[in-house]
Amino acid sequence: MRVTIKDIAKKAGVSIATVSYIINNTKPVTPETRDKVLQAIKELNYRPNYSARGLANYRTNLIGVLIPYWDEDTKQGVMFDNPFYSELVRGVEVVTSKHHYHILLMGISDRPQAVTNLVQQRDLDGLIVVGAYQELVASLTKIEIPVVLVDTYAEHSRFYTVQIDDEYGGYLATQYLLTMGHEKIGLLTGELFPQGVAVRRFQGYKKALAERGLEVNHKYVYETKISTQGGYEGIDHLLQQAPDLTALFSMADIMTIGILKRLREAKLKVPDHLSIVSFDGVLYPEFLNPALTTIDQDIFEKGRIAATLLIKLIFGEKITEPHVVLPVTLAARESVKELK
Amino acid sequence: MRVTIKDIAKKAGVSIATVSYIINNTKPVTPETRDKVLQAIKELNYRPNYSARGLANYRTNLIGVLIPYWDEDTKQGVMFDNPFYSELVRGVEVVTSKHHYHILLMGISDRPQAVTNLVQQRDLDGLIVVGAYQELVASLTKIEIPVVLVDTYAEHSRFYTVQIDDEYGGYLATQYLLTMGHEKIGLLTGELFPQGVAVRRFQGYKKALAERGLEVNHKYVYETKISTQGGYEGIDHLLQQAPDLTALFSMADIMTIGILKRLREAKLKVPDHLSIVSFDGVLYPEFLNPALTTIDQDIFEKGRIAATLLIKLIFGEKITEPHVVLPVTLAARESVKELK
Repeated sequence: MRVTIKDIAKKAGVSIATVSYIINNTKPVTPETRDKVLQAIKELNYRPNYSARGLANYRTNLIGVLIPYWDEDTKQGVMFDNPFYSELVRGVEVVTSKHHYHILLMGISDRPQAVTNLVQQRDLDGLIVVGAYQELVASLTKIEIPVVLVDTYAEHSRFYTVQIDDEYGGYLATQYLLTMGHEKIGLLTGELFPQGVAVRRFQGYKKALAERGLEVNHKYVYETKISTQGGYEGIDHLLQQAPDLTALFSMADIMTIGILKRLREAKLKVPDHLSIVSFDGVLYPEFLNPALTTIDQDIFEKGRIAATLLIKLIFGEKITEPHVVLPVTLAARESVKELK
Repeated sequence: MRVTIKDIAKKAGVSIATVSYIINNTKPVTPETRDKVLQAIKELNYRPNYSARGLANYRTNLIGVLIPYWDEDTKQGVMFDNPFYSELVRGVEVVTSKHHYHILLMGISDRPQAVTNLVQQRDLDGLIVVGAYQELVASLTKIEIPVVLVDTYAEHSRFYTVQIDDEYGGYLATQYLLTMGHEKIGLLTGELFPQGVAVRRFQGYKKALAERGLEVNHKYVYETKISTQGGYEGIDHLLQQAPDLTALFSMADIMTIGILKRLREAKLKVPDHLSIVSFDGVLYPEFLNPALTTIDQDIFEKGRIAATLLIKLIFGEKITEPHVVLPVTLAARESVKELK
């Protein structure tokens, strides 16, 4: 049996309204009344019901974390296939648990309506959305609760954002390969849509090549899914259309695992046959074979900052930095060979 | 503005009660009335509010997934530090999304009261609890909603369980090392509490040794946290108290990463100086250096089965298999050397 506000009122000998004033801090009451009610709450071990609080427009202490699906049809590669997301949620959880908030975790497909429904149905206090695409961003502009976007390029002023310098990451990866003597540099990229990180990393790739007086050879670029399967199939396509590649910039560690798998099957060695720079640094790259040269980002910190921003927004605190851009660094390990 | 049941009633020209009967399927109404209401719902794009439904004892379409904290004080190593958990949640999500259920994700500390509060406050329809310990199990027996325990040994008849054959896993790891000529086999184990998986794997270790006429040398066993840090510090302690070890059974991949780190710093090679069998197979073991010999389990499937069980319980369907035990297999790779 759940203890209700009614039980508290009965036990304390006050009206239900009075109990409600005290619980929700909506009206002052005398200290004696307050003490009586708090005593009853303690004795009956009463806990407020967040569903009920949600109804009355109180905070529900619930935020949504929305993560994109890769493949709605097959449900393959759904969200957590990429350890990136678990690391991010870990950062979020560290903050929310401190503020007694709970996380509603949801994959999002390409139906943006699902998100507005979710916010309404669950009375969410706020949303963290990772990697949102155009239709979703448009749909999010209409939502009345605070929204923090992670890894999403959206111009709309209502959004708070946390991201890395993706263009610089792509530039850094490519420039490193150039300094190591490579010019035939492939790019295995995630989906290139305007709000995404992949387009920016591609820009960085272009920029580094341009500085060297090189143009993008479209045979060297292949767009695929950010998953092991995407990497496995992608490298196959790429090497068929451009067998002369000496190096590769892979846009995500999870994709690189698929690449390593396919190369191993084809008896092609990294870095002897193909040098690789990967992105994220999330899969313990120093213990992979070969130790993977990566563009590292602090994904845990991304989640932590996104949640900190969101909680501040929910509590109406002042936001001094609405758009946070975290740094990326190159960690040179053993997957790139110098071309002489 | 949220569309409410009141708006529907107004639009359809019927009473609020009538709309409620139709939405919640609680009373029959005439086909004409039904059509009018459904038309209004469609036109106004009404979505039921789950918080409100929760209040009236309807389903909230919300389940909790509870994951243990490793370190309440520092919040270090909290849940998703171990990719095991993301893989499990992925399996859960594949099932819940199909049934239009949402996941409330929560770390649990050693305060079991938090869980009963959570169930009440959120009107959860069901719970999946991973790796529950004694006090928590006791507290869960009092919860009135369906509970599926993962990786928890609990005798109470109210629980449904999904696990692997942990004892056999420990046996398999140790027996393999024995057949490879090792007798000085260390064990780096997670916390040994009665409901946990570690005790069973330890039993398997003992059993394999006993078959070979060997007893457990307590200098060879070290209990630590299931985290990279736990592995890093654990192997240090273990090698100090037992420098003669030739092999090690590490109870989790995430711990093994810490072990590899420490051994590399100490310039000790795997498997030349120390052979290792790890457990889980979750960190792409074939691409680690050296490719890791592991006891593999299907963690995604564990999550999938737990969620399937829970959804069936919530819908009152018949459960033919209340206790599911999934198989483990040994994948021999390169981290064990044959001792001649």
